[in-house]
Order: sequence, then C-alpha cells, then structure tokens
Amino acid sequence: MATDRRVQTLARHLAQVPSSEQSEGLTRLACSAQTHRSLPRFDSVVLEHYLDDQRSLKLEVYELFRQHPELLPAVYEGMPKEEHRELVRKQLLVLLGAGYSPMQFFAKDYKKYFYLGELLALIDLSLTVKLGVQYSLWGGSICNLGTERHRKQYFEDIDKFRLPGCFAMTELRHGSNVAALETEAVLDLATDEWIITTPDDGAIKWWIGNAAEDGQACTVFARLKVPVPERDGMLVDHGVHALVAPLRSSKGEICPGVEIRDCGYKVGLQGVDNGSIRFAGLRVPRDNLLDRFASVDRSGNYSSPFSPGRRFGATLGELTGGRVGLTSSSIGVLKGAVTVALRYNAQRQQFGPPEAPEISVLDYQSQRQKLLPLLATCYALHFTRGVLVAKYEEAKVTKDDKIVADVHAMSAGLKAYTTGYTANALSVCRESCGGHGYAAINRFGSWRSDHDIFQTFEGDNTVLYQQVAAMLLKGYKDKFSGAPLQATYTYLRQWASDALPPNPLVSHDTTTRHLRDSSFLIRSLRYRTARLLHTAAARLRKHSRKMGAFHAWNRCLPHLLLLARAHIESLILDANLKAVSACPDPECRKSLKALADLFALQRIHDDILFAHADYVAPDKAKAIQRLIEQLCSELRGVALPLVDAFAIPDHILRAPIGLSASQQHGQQYNEYLAAVGWELGA
Amino acid sequence: MATDRRVQTLARHLAQVPSSEQSEGLTRLACSAQTHRSLPRFDSVVLEHYLDDQRSLKLEVYELFRQHPELLPAVYEGMPKEEHRELVRKQLLVLLGAGYSPMQFFAKDYKKYFYLGELLALIDLSLTVKLGVQYSLWGGSICNLGTERHRKQYFEDIDKFRLPGCFAMTELRHGSNVAALETEAVLDLATDEWIITTPDDGAIKWWIGNAAEDGQACTVFARLKVPVPERDGMLVDHGVHALVAPLRSSKGEICPGVEIRDCGYKVGLQGVDNGSIRFAGLRVPRDNLLDRFASVDRSGNYSSPFSPGRRFGATLGELTGGRVGLTSSSIGVLKGAVTVALRYNAQRQQFGPPEAPEISVLDYQSQRQKLLPLLATCYALHFTRGVLVAKYEEAKVTKDDKIVADVHAMSAGLKAYTTGYTANALSVCRESCGGHGYAAINRFGSWRSDHDIFQTFEGDNTVLYQQVAAMLLKGYKDKFSGAPLQATYTYLRQWASDALPPNPLVSHDTTTRHLRDSSFLIRSLRYRTARLLHTAAARLRKHSRKMGAFHAWNRCLPHLLLLARAHIESLILDANLKAVSACPDPECRKSLKALADLFALQRIHDDILFAHADYVAPDKAKAIQRLIEQLCSELRGVALPLVDAFAIPDHILRAPIGLSASQQHGQQYNEYLAAVGWELGA
Repeated sequence: MATDRRVQTLARHLAQVPSSEQSEGLTRLACSAQTHRSLPRFDSVVLEHYLDDQRSLKLEVYELFRQHPELLPAVYEGMPKEEHRELVRKQLLVLLGAGYSPMQFFAKDYKKYFYLGELLALIDLSLTVKLGVQYSLWGGSICNLGTERHRKQYFEDIDKFRLPGCFAMTELRHGSNVAALETEAVLDLATDEWIITTPDDGAIKWWIGNAAEDGQACTVFARLKVPVPERDGMLVDHGVHALVAPLRSSKGEICPGVEIRDCGYKVGLQGVDNGSIRFAGLRVPRDNLLDRFASVDRSGNYSSPFSPGRRFGATLGELTGGRVGLTSSSIGVLKGAVTVALRYNAQRQQFGPPEAPEISVLDYQSQRQKLLPLLATCYALHFTRGVLVAKYEEAKVTKDDKIVADVHAMSAGLKAYTTGYTANALSVCRESCGGHGYAAINRFGSWRSDHDIFQTFEGDNTVLYQQVAAMLLKGYKDKFSGAPLQATYTYLRQWASDALPPNPLVSHDTTTRHLRDSSFLIRSLRYRTARLLHTAAARLRKHSRKMGAFHAWNRCLPHLLLLARAHIESLILDANLKAVSACPDPECRKSLKALADLFALQRIHDDILFAHADYVAPDKAKAIQRLIEQLCSELRGVALPLVDAFAIPDHILRAPIGLSASQQHGQQYNEYLAAVGWELGA
Repeated sequence: MATDRRVQTLARHLAQVPSSEQSEGLTRLACSAQTHRSLPRFDSVVLEHYLDDQRSLKLEVYELFRQHPELLPAVYEGMPKEEHRELVRKQLLVLLGAGYSPMQFFAKDYKKYFYLGELLALIDLSLTVKLGVQYSLWGGSICNLGTERHRKQYFEDIDKFRLPGCFAMTELRHGSNVAALETEAVLDLATDEWIITTPDDGAIKWWIGNAAEDGQACTVFARLKVPVPERDGMLVDHGVHALVAPLRSSKGEICPGVEIRDCGYKVGLQGVDNGSIRFAGLRVPRDNLLDRFASVDRSGNYSSPFSPGRRFGATLGELTGGRVGLTSSSIGVLKGAVTVALRYNAQRQQFGPPEAPEISVLDYQSQRQKLLPLLATCYALHFTRGVLVAKYEEAKVTKDDKIVADVHAMSAGLKAYTTGYTANALSVCRESCGGHGYAAINRFGSWRSDHDIFQTFEGDNTVLYQQVAAMLLKGYKDKFSGAPLQATYTYLRQWASDALPPNPLVSHDTTTRHLRDSSFLIRSLRYRTARLLHTAAARLRKHSRKMGAFHAWNRCLPHLLLLARAHIESLILDANLKAVSACPDPECRKSLKALADLFALQRIHDDILFAHADYVAPDKAKAIQRLIEQLCSELRGVALPLVDAFAIPDHILRAPIGLSASQQHGQQYNEYLAAVGWELGA
C-alpha cells in the first residue's frame, strides 16, 4: 500500500508532466535580457563525453531505475524508517539482479565501483550508504584485513548480499580515537575461541550500519587479550584488532551473546538500519581473527611482521576505499544540487528596470557570485576525484608504501574537503531557490539531511585534516627525501628547506593576463601551502619544547587545519588545470579554464591577508575581486550548458524546478504545478 | 494510536532517565584537565534574571507543556504531515485554553508576544510558525491594514482561533516583488462587490500558511481594478491592496470560486498546513477592502491620503511585526542548539597526551574557536532583540514616521542577520557533536529543517538587506538631516559628508587593553559601515550615469549587501556593549564583556582587508587573531554557566546529549542509552 502510494505520487510527478507541445500551461513572462561578456558556446554532449569515461555504466544504471520507478523514494513524505529500509533492500537487489557485482568492482574494477557511488547518490543516498557498508566496509575489511581463507569463505555471499554484514568499529564513547576502543576479545586456549565482551556500556558498538535489521555477521574491532601460560594465564593486551563475528542466523534470530538495539531515527539516511551492539561473551573460532597483519597460533603466540604502531596504521590504512567512495557520492550530490539551483535561478524572474520586464535572478550579481563558484568547485572536484581514483588503483597494483601513504592522505583530505564543501553548498542552493527550494519534492532538504553525516563518518573531517597536516609535517621534517616523483606533495620538496620562494602576490601586476596565468595561480596556492607548512613547523617546534607534542599540536590546531586545506586546494587546482589542458575541444576548454580560474582566484581572495601574510597590495586584492566578478559574469552565459554536461536524466533528478525541460520557457512552473496536483490550463 | 506511540517514546526518553543517585550506568572516564586563563565564576541564576525580564511567562508556558508531554512532538519519527498538523492544533488550543490571548499580546503587549515566539520555538517550530500565521500575519493584517470595523468583526474570533485565517500574498511566480502580483479584485458596481480572480496559473497564491486545512478566511493581496463610469466602465488598476476573503465554511467546505491544493511536504515545518489557492470569480463585499490606507466608495471612487508609492510602502511597512517575531524565534533556536553543543562538547572526551586520560573535545583549539563565537553571537543577538522590541513598541506608541522607518529597516536587517546566522550555526553545532549529533533525538536535524525557511519567508534575506542599504543611502543623501537622535543610524550622521574619519585599525597599538577597548571596537565597526556607505554611494553615482539606477544597483549588489550587514553588526555591538555596562553583577559583567569583545573582534578579523581597505599592519591583524584565541580560551572556562543562564528546562530541550543533567559525570551517555532502549547497568 505504501508502495502503491509512492508509485502514484511518482506517476503524478513524472507522467503528468506534459511535453512542451501538449502544454496548455504557463508560458514564460517576458524577460529583460542582460548582456554578458561571453564565452564561446560549446556542445554539452561533447563536454559530457569528456567528463564521463564510464558513461555506459551511467546509462545502464539509470535505465534500470527508469524501468523501476517504484524504487525511487519519496523519502520526504514522512516514510517510516522500516519502510524506507525495505525500499533500499529492493533497490540493492534490483542492482544485483541486473548482474552487477559490487564486491568484484570493489576488489578489481575501482573506477566502476566509485562511479557507482556517484550515480546511486542521486537515486537514494541511503542506497549509496547501504552499499558502502556492505561492500567498502564489511566486504572491504574481509578483503583487506583478512587472508585468502576469509576471502574464500565470504566473498561470494557478501557480493550477492546473501551475507549482509557490518563494520563494528565505533563505540558509544569512542569514535575518532580508535586505539582507545574498549571491546575485548579474550582468547580461551581450552576451546580455541575468542570470547567477545563489551566491558561497560560506554563500549557498546554504536551507529553500526546493517546492524539493526539485516546484519548476519560483522567485523568487530576489539582489543585482543591473550593469556600467557608461563605467567599463570595473565592476559596480555595486544591492542585493537579486527575479527569476524556472527550476529544473526540467516533467519534473523540474534545469536546468544549478542544484544542489538535500533539506533532509531537519524537526521537523514533512514533507509540505513544503524544499530548498537552489546557483546556478552560471544564465542568465535580463533580463525575468525582477520590476520593479514597479525596472527595468533593455537598456543596463543601472537605474531606480526609490524611494530604495534605500524600494524595499527596498516589496519586503518586499508580503509581508504570508503573515503574515496564518500568523496565520489558527495560529488554526485553536488552535481545534482548545482543543476537544480542554476536551472531554476536562470528561469526565475523577479524585479526589473522601470517600465521593462523583470530580469532573471541569476543576473543579480549577488546570486551569480553565490552560485557560479559552486559550479567551478563542482568541476574541480570532479577532475580531482579522477586523479584520486587513478592513484588508488596505482596503490592497489604497486602496493608501494609511499604511494599507499600518499593515497591515504589524499583520500582523507579530499573526503573532508568535498563533503564539507557539499554540505555548505546544499544550504546555499536551497536558499538561492527561495520558497520553492523549500518544497520537499525539489530535494534540497533530503539531500542535505542525508549527506550531512558524510562530514563525520569514516573519519571526522577535522580529524582527517589533521592526518593530512601530519603527513606534510613528516615530509617536511624528512625534506620529502624518499617521496616518489608522482606523489601529490612532491611540489613541496623544493621548499623543504629554510627558504621560502617569493610570494607571487607581491608582484604589482594586476592585469587579467597575469592573474589568469595558470602558473601564477598554481604558484600562489603552492606558496600558501609552503608558507603555512614552514610556519606550522616552526610553531610546533617552539611550543613542543614547553608543553610537549600533544599540547603543542593542539595549540597550533587552527593553523594545521588551514595547512591541510591549503594543500588539498593546491592538489585540486593542479588536477583541474591538467584536465583543462587535456580537453580536446577548444570551446569547452575555454569554459573549463574560466571555471578553474574562478576556483583558484576565489581561494586566493578568501584568505588573502592571513595566509599570504606578507604585504599584499590592496590594488592587487581589488583586481582579484573584480576579476572574480567578471568571470562570474562570463560563466553566467554558459552556466546552463555546463550543468547540462553533467547529463543527469530528468527521471533521476526529479526536482520539478530543475528538470532539463524547465529550460524551456515556463516549464519549471508547469512541472511544479502538476506535482502539487493542479491540472494545467484549467 | 500515533499519540500513544509518541507518549511512550517520550516517556522512555524522559522518565527512564535515572537521577544521578539511582544510576547504575556509566560514570565519566578520567579527564585530563586543561588550564584556562580564567574569568571569574558567576551565578547562572543571577545572569538568567538579568537576561529574562519576562521570566514568569517562561516558567508558566514551560510548566504548561510539562503537564502535556503528549504535545511535545517527536517530529523526526517519520510523522505524516496530517498527524503533525493535528498535533500543532492541539498545542495551540492548550495555550489558548490556559488563558493566553496572542492577538491581545500582538496588539498591545509586544514584549510578551515576541518572547512567546522564542519560547515556543523550542517546543515545536511548526507551532511558532502557525502562531505567526494566525496572529502576526492574518490577525496583524486585520489590525494594521484594516479599520475599526474590521477589528470589531474579526479580532475576538481570530484570538480564539475560531476563525483560522491566512495571509495570501505570495504567488507561484512572484514572492519578493510584491508590486508585480497578478491576482485581481475587480469592483462590480452593480452588486457592490469585489470579484477576485487568478488571471493565470502563475498567479496562484502559493505557500499560504493555514490554507491547506484550517483557513476559513484570508487577507488576499490583489490588484484593485475599478471601473470608471465616465469612461465606459474601463478598469483602472490601482495596484496591490489587501482584502478579506472567505475560503471555507466553519465546517470546512471550500467556498465556490475558491480552489485549494495542499503544497505537500516541505523540508521541515510539516505541522503547518501550507496550501496554494486559485480564485475563480470569488465575490466579496466592497467593505472587505482593508481600508486604512486607501478606500473605495459606493460609486467606485478611489481615495488615499498617500501617493501610490507611499501607500504601498505603508501597507508593507505594517508587516514589520512578523520579522520581529521571526528574529525572536530564531534566537530561541540558536540558544537551544548552542546549549546542546556546548554541553556535549564539554563532556565528550577523545584523545589525550601520552600516558594520560583523554581531554574534553571542547579543549581543542579548533572546536573552541568554532563554538564560542556562536555563544557570543547568541548573547549579542539576545540583547539586540531587546532593543528592537523596545523600538517597535516606541514606533507603535508614537507613530512617528521616522521611528517607524527606522524600526522597519532594523527589523528587516536583524531578521536577515539572525536567521542567516542561526541557519549556519545549526550546521556547525551538529557537526561539532559528531555522530551523536546526527541522532534525530538530539534535535539538530529538525531544528535545521524547520528553521531553514526563516531565511526566506517574510522577506528573502538578500532582499531585506537591500532595504537596509537603501535606507542608509537615502539617509546619506539627505545627510541624515531629519533623523531623530534615537534612530539606530544616527551614528552615521557625523560622517554624512565627504570626509571619512580615520581608520581605527591604522593605529599600531596591538595591546590587549587597546584592542578590548569598547570605543576602539565600536569605532572600528562604525568606520567599516561609514566607509562602505561612502564608497557605495560613489560607485552608485558613477554607474547610474551610464546604466541607470536599476543596473547600477545590481552592479554594486555585493557591496551593498556588505554595507547592510556591516550596519547591522554595528547596531548589534552597540546594543551588546550597552547591555554589558548595564549588568549590575560585576562577575557576570566580565563574562559578558568577553563575549561582546569576541563578537566584535571576530567581525573585524573576518574582513580585515576588504572592508578596511586602507593598509592594515599584519601585526595588528595577527594580534587580533591571537586575542580571539585567548578570549575563546577564557570563555571556555565559563561556557557551561553561560548556557545555563538560558535556563532551558530539560523537558523542553529534550536532546539527551545536552540535558542539564549531562553536566554530571557520565550522564550524557546514560540518558542517551536509555533513549535508544538500553537498560542501564545491565
């Protein structure tokens, strides 16, 4: 019945939308056109092909959901969580039924796996997250932390969702500080089993996806405690390790020794069944230890090829895939939101010169300078994600430690940057669409509520930025000595000395030619990173002497977060400008270059004094400000073709005010009227 | 049944929370204490009394809802909109049943009316908005745009909610540009009636609160068209006026000539029944014109004591009350969010120095500098709201044109500033609470979704800021000649000449004494406003010559928005520092002064180069940055007493991680565990 209702609603939303020929609805009011310095027109389809090298996967997946409109959720209609979870299960089974093997993708076909995360984000973010839990986290921990026998035992069942599982790491009292987790796994030498216990309620596993309803098993992170016979069976704590543990039978009966509660309603993502788990002496075979990095033999002898610190680092390092996936999904949401906001703003008209028609609200300077930087960043992140996925693949193939570390830091930083940026952009987009942006069917609300936690899970953004800063400081100390040339931080190597290069902003050149020169932009952002790195290192040295490393780090924390963000922005600009140069179509390339310049100039503008702490000529600052205005004006003329190149089909985008048809005069309102139940032209 | 479920949930959330004596639950883990430069301790109750001069109203209203826990919504539990609307009706009726007369408050007891808006915001924002629709908008239009006979006819029935009504202004195609509304009211001289018609679907009234279910009548904004007998009955368009029109019988039957559709699910505020209305020749008596500012006699003669422009301005000007109300409610939400975030952050511990317990996350510099400025702004807005309400009262009593205009601009600007600030703060607070901030019971999600539209309705913030800028520019042109001394912009009068005062930031004094001197802070913010005003006026003059006033305005729009915000921040600082001085308790005063200084320094810091475009010594900028850090550190020591002074009782705040009990060791987790259904200490 609930499904019927949803199908009806969808049918009303979509089917009744008249084609422009049939419409008897509204036509657009006259509009006072504004002249723009214009960029050359280009073909959106050409740009789309340049953007999407996995385009056939997109077409297939979106076609699949065109055939299953009943699976597209109207999550804003007060749907109870149980109903939404059931819907997500069906979505996943339809994907599997169509022959996709997400576990295979995750293990081998990285591009496809991460692109799938982007595509599904616009269908239902709960589905993306459910997929991430099952494959990146549960499946990923088996593949990356386990050994061959684990993969053999579980891979197929995980792939087919015959064995839904969880990643039971976070506890009520500990999230970011994984080393302080309290759950215990004590080895019972008599039975050759681990006994898993939650020592107090603060150690209850919390927010565990798949736990409330579906999960039959989990990877549980627990402190390994092993008795030493020579010392009267005294337990030695080997720190946090991952083990496989059962939770439910295939019929859904919860195992003895396990208690589970539903975490209840969340801000969003109601389609994911997060639960909390308490272990009361659950017994699992010794072999259930995921033993790629450490093992325990029948006599209780613990061995690891690594030092404890490096073993722990290697364990966590294998979870990088999840962050790449989140980055990808977050970019998907950003594309959707920017598409809706720009199309609506281009069509919406309000106020105008005296005795003349109203103007498009996108022709207001303030609106344009709010929205076009979002589009620029969206493109920049799209290209950078491509670089990240390629590096991820390289790390997987070469298993080179340095590349692995580089990818780890890059994925941490890009996850933090992208999800923080998208979270804010969703609010800007909603607000830019005024009241109609507040209609649930236009999707900003559910996107924001669902996406919000992307800033926190799989690494709180503030913590992830600190990992980036730590890596840069380590490299600085080592003078980036061993870094391979392809590492993303290599650009800092030449500056890992006591001398900083000259600040490019000191030059008094304020010509557009100079300010849009790629080399100037790259040098400016790199200078910023280098300067922040130099000064952070000096401050840390100074404070460490007095207060020790922990407190010195804390004392410099805002500085370190700036450093990490600056580095990530340097990387993004590099990836972006490379993609601009590589674009074979000269018309597309001009728009892409304008977007990249806008991205870079906005960042220089936003912290021109504090990060570039040398004297900056106010004239130069003002010239940058003016150039940003001018680029927004030029890009306004090609804003619609630029979002068209994201090529999100209407049945996936769904928001009536943002459909591609709305680019025809008056259509945005007609689709919206129909969605609210008005018959057109009555 | 739905109510039963809600009561059970609430009972579980609240009743099962054990008092600290009984608890067998968690106790707090050891915590590495951090030393703070400390501010003197003060008594929260003393500060509470200083903040709340309407404290008895608060106690009464909160007690009423303590007795009616079934009326406190669990809106995050996928509640269908119809159910939530029914709940809001019950909330409203309980308030009325307890003897409150919101219509009386609105008309006479302004302080109480606006304070009620703040109080109810933490109970259910849908209730606040429902109340605003019924009393500020529907009732307010009768009181302020109508004449005595309208008040006699409607006042009592509106007050008692016997006549639920709407404010039918916004249309599908026009929101901000009220003068362009298309709905028509044509006078039929034969029957002495207005015939109200929606000329095309773009003019359907949209987002009208109370329309989908409850509204029996509305104030409809329509173009008056009156036939001129001498000219063969040709219609003369007198522009947009307000008329009373029926929508439904008291039994709920929709009137002939009216069609209504439910606007459907929104991002939030599902408890408000927004609808869209199409008029098809609805007839209403001529007397239904709300004729305080213009009237039409039996023969169709139109008369107004004002010019058309001034009449239109006077009509819209009377709607100021709604904006004061929204400001007040938004401050209520901000207080709630800041309370939860600071309490949780103080208790949450994560990471620590080697071999030592973890530290409170509020002891991280980055976290502190994220959250304490929110607290400072919350206090600043609280005090400024007090000034605004007093000015509103003054305007109502004196009816002095200049004061009315001043209140109009101040309420527009403060509504925009407050709602924009709170919207962003809600995201910061949620994120600062990590995963547990994402649990729906901790309320950030529903606060954000419900509050989001505060930035748009009753005046889009971008449009409201422009009204502030326009008023300042008019004053500048007139050299603020007629402004009474008590007007909020009087400080600009001395600078309404060609000369700017010296920039206070140019002085090289970087001592704390100088930087925390109230006079320096006030002069800095005022200088910024004066400078932005000077330069905006010059740019507008220059561009107007070439491109006309409309396009010149648009060209300078980002500049004008900065100007408006700068002015509002000047006002806020003034109000804030006055309230600091007036505080009789010396200990409280020290904390209040630190908050005010933090507010001001943060604003100076955030646009130090662009707004203060003269050369600013990097040393001074750095000194300000350091002082902000230091103030955050000092305020961290009194953060909890400062939020305790908001004195939000636990049964109103509800978020388990933010209850006052959570300040006892370990309690935050115990309350949260109980809410998710774990029995404590099992």
